[in-house]
Amino acid sequence: MRSTTNVQTLFFAAFVSVLATFSTPLCGQITSDEDAFFIRRIYDKALTEGETYQWLHHLTKDVGARLSGSPQAAAAVEYTKQVLDTIHLDSVWLQPCMVPHWVRGENEVVRICQSAMGTVALDALALGGSVGTGPEGISAEVMEVKTFEELESFGEDVIKGKIVFYNRPFDATLLNTFQAYGGAVGQRVNGAIEAAKYGAVGILVRSMASGHNDVPHTGGMYYKDGVKKIPSVAISTNDAELLSNLLQLGTVEVYMRTTSVTYEDKKSYNVIGEIKGREKPDEIIVIGGHLDSWDVGEGAHDDGAGCVQSMEVLRLMKQLGYQPKRTIRCVLFMNEENGSRGGEAYAEVAKEKGEINLAAIESDRGGFTPRGFTFDENSKNFGQRFASAQSWLPLMEPYDLHFKKGGSGADISHLNDSGTFLIGFEPDAQRYFDYHHAPTDVFESVNERELELGAAAITSLVFLIDKYGLE
Amino acid sequence: MRSTTNVQTLFFAAFVSVLATFSTPLCGQITSDEDAFFIRRIYDKALTEGETYQWLHHLTKDVGARLSGSPQAAAAVEYTKQVLDTIHLDSVWLQPCMVPHWVRGENEVVRICQSAMGTVALDALALGGSVGTGPEGISAEVMEVKTFEELESFGEDVIKGKIVFYNRPFDATLLNTFQAYGGAVGQRVNGAIEAAKYGAVGILVRSMASGHNDVPHTGGMYYKDGVKKIPSVAISTNDAELLSNLLQLGTVEVYMRTTSVTYEDKKSYNVIGEIKGREKPDEIIVIGGHLDSWDVGEGAHDDGAGCVQSMEVLRLMKQLGYQPKRTIRCVLFMNEENGSRGGEAYAEVAKEKGEINLAAIESDRGGFTPRGFTFDENSKNFGQRFASAQSWLPLMEPYDLHFKKGGSGADISHLNDSGTFLIGFEPDAQRYFDYHHAPTDVFESVNERELELGAAAITSLVFLIDKYGLE
Repeated sequence: MRSTTNVQTLFFAAFVSVLATFSTPLCGQITSDEDAFFIRRIYDKALTEGETYQWLHHLTKDVGARLSGSPQAAAAVEYTKQVLDTIHLDSVWLQPCMVPHWVRGENEVVRICQSAMGTVALDALALGGSVGTGPEGISAEVMEVKTFEELESFGEDVIKGKIVFYNRPFDATLLNTFQAYGGAVGQRVNGAIEAAKYGAVGILVRSMASGHNDVPHTGGMYYKDGVKKIPSVAISTNDAELLSNLLQLGTVEVYMRTTSVTYEDKKSYNVIGEIKGREKPDEIIVIGGHLDSWDVGEGAHDDGAGCVQSMEVLRLMKQLGYQPKRTIRCVLFMNEENGSRGGEAYAEVAKEKGEINLAAIESDRGGFTPRGFTFDENSKNFGQRFASAQSWLPLMEPYDLHFKKGGSGADISHLNDSGTFLIGFEPDAQRYFDYHHAPTDVFESVNERELELGAAAITSLVFLIDKYGLE
Repeated sequence: MRSTTNVQTLFFAAFVSVLATFSTPLCGQITSDEDAFFIRRIYDKALTEGETYQWLHHLTKDVGARLSGSPQAAAAVEYTKQVLDTIHLDSVWLQPCMVPHWVRGENEVVRICQSAMGTVALDALALGGSVGTGPEGISAEVMEVKTFEELESFGEDVIKGKIVFYNRPFDATLLNTFQAYGGAVGQRVNGAIEAAKYGAVGILVRSMASGHNDVPHTGGMYYKDGVKKIPSVAISTNDAELLSNLLQLGTVEVYMRTTSVTYEDKKSYNVIGEIKGREKPDEIIVIGGHLDSWDVGEGAHDDGAGCVQSMEVLRLMKQLGYQPKRTIRCVLFMNEENGSRGGEAYAEVAKEKGEINLAAIESDRGGFTPRGFTFDENSKNFGQRFASAQSWLPLMEPYDLHFKKGGSGADISHLNDSGTFLIGFEPDAQRYFDYHHAPTDVFESVNERELELGAAAITSLVFLIDKYGLE
């Protein structure tokens, strides 16, 4: 339905033809102009005939939230396999793994039942993996801490029988919101274990979010053998402020009820498709996102965006008639959110088969405007490989992309031992923690052009790694 | 309400103190570290105690859309003057100008009344400044063109008595959406004049928008003395596609009705506040946005964002105890959208008074994540001044900001003749034309952190121009 006067393509065609005439004597120059031209074709295709937005619409609106073990996760496996089947790949297959099966149950109730303000209902979501409170719920006095050190300083005498409220906010001064998340998420991940050690009966956690609003954000958590499992619930940042203010005025008692349950592990799958390399088919370049999501919202940014972008890389290459030297493989990992079993299974199978996964790029930071890529310093031969990549930076300049040192992705991290060069796609991060693990992570929060530009950026990097390797 | 453990500030304080100990012998080094430290303080303040988001909330939700001459425009003048009055500036004043007074009237009706599909109502908005159709409306056969050349090729015989439908879309392959806008907006601006020359009775224009949806976008247009003024209406991109498809199937007749009216010019104002320079008070650095907006939506990105960011520059400087060498002036221009009378008035008064407006920065590209600044090559002494600015780029690196050649802003462009260095703040542009001049340009479409980061970026550049000048 899009009719575009493709002025830039015409311009580039003219430009390249001029160069072909004049610059043949300059060694290596032609190659680089060809690369610029091919990358421009990738962008043109992605921006005018991209499929990511339509695919994401189906994955979010028709399939919906896709927690591991849910019927929707199974539907997502089926749907994405069907999509990969339509784009004329050399192979498409499902790779089995066993995944946790946690079910939220009825809507949580968290209510301040005694305070200076009386009774107040809070916006809450049980953390993923939390035990239930039992159908009656629990009531207890609340105590607030900001750190585990502060918790320890109170000790069992003070904590026993209470609900511990973790209220350390994101550090708003950090430009990288993922760094702010990293500085706060320990409360969510290990809060229940630490509080239970001192006899707490439950925990409330301030949502892992950038802003101040009424949206609760769920997310993964751990229990530990030998430490009592206590119910764990996230509350919105506004309610965290409210609760904190009420605690300044006196004793606060909270009632909490969640009926969540963990069932037996279930069988699920990574969804994989690939184009076989024509020169070095044994060298594999992986692009991936994770197919599962939390059970609230629609898993649009986290990580529907990464999935459709990964599939689009292969589709664009086929559409452009690009025949890769190396094998280009799209992997939609299952169970990143609460177990990483898909990532583990992929790495195990690769190891068993002795596969060479040369490089892996994960897109799991949302479908926002691309800012660049981050390269994992822990990767084997990092210095040399990063230098190779940096030599391509002039080709990225028209697209305002940087290459930095940094993280890659949870799913591909399991490939580190086998020497894979690990890369993370890096979109702009300012809005991510408004949607992450929350009911707000819906299709409407994703911008079509931003999503398409991400697919084009990733495809361009895959093209360069394929063409030049990482020597 | 925000409690932030300001780790970075502590870190920087320690860092600077270490540098003060060890690097005193290195000439110039200390100054640069002090600058980095001060810019970090600007960001910390903007991100933890920023006022932009609250101000924007008032300007959009309590004042609302602010078309020149409307009661809301008057309210916006009053509100922003009151805000400037509270932040302890040296002077705050209103600068009068006469503005056009166009009123949309009743909701537009645009209906396909005869086509292969029968009757269909279209999502439409009269262009700003359009004449009305009269209360009865008009009906006529529609003909589609993509360019003025195509229009000319049809000539008066074909066009006379028809409604001309301009349907050239944005070029989606252009990464810079403003460039795509530039390639299409001529249809809106001059379409009525060109069509009327050949006897057309009205025009329909495909909305100036990036995507495909049901949102109509209004915007400015011209008539010309001696050429008949014909009614001019924008329709949504989806409806433009629909209409185009129906035209492939046969004759289409459209009924259009708009009751818009242009009244006598009204008196309005630029709102200005400043901090007097302590060393060179006669050299002025201007930061500005425009206070008026179109009459649909809430003028949040266009240009409430630029206004609150401009006010925030002064507030941050006062809050940080910064005493500028030069005069820092915030100008909220009236009537950018349909006349630029505020920009003209400001430049005229500056000329009359012999003011030295050293540099002017305009924020009028939305409240999105900052990407950098563009510097107008037509500015006096461009090469030397741009080189000065580029020497500051290392200080911008932690904030991922670039300095490029490019446009500045419509309001400040009137200062070009007097030698002002013209600069445009450049946020990420991918989402802008989803909101521009449309009912979707509301408070909720602005992200708090993105808005605050913009204010911090502009304040940082103003600080550097103030401290080092442009020699």
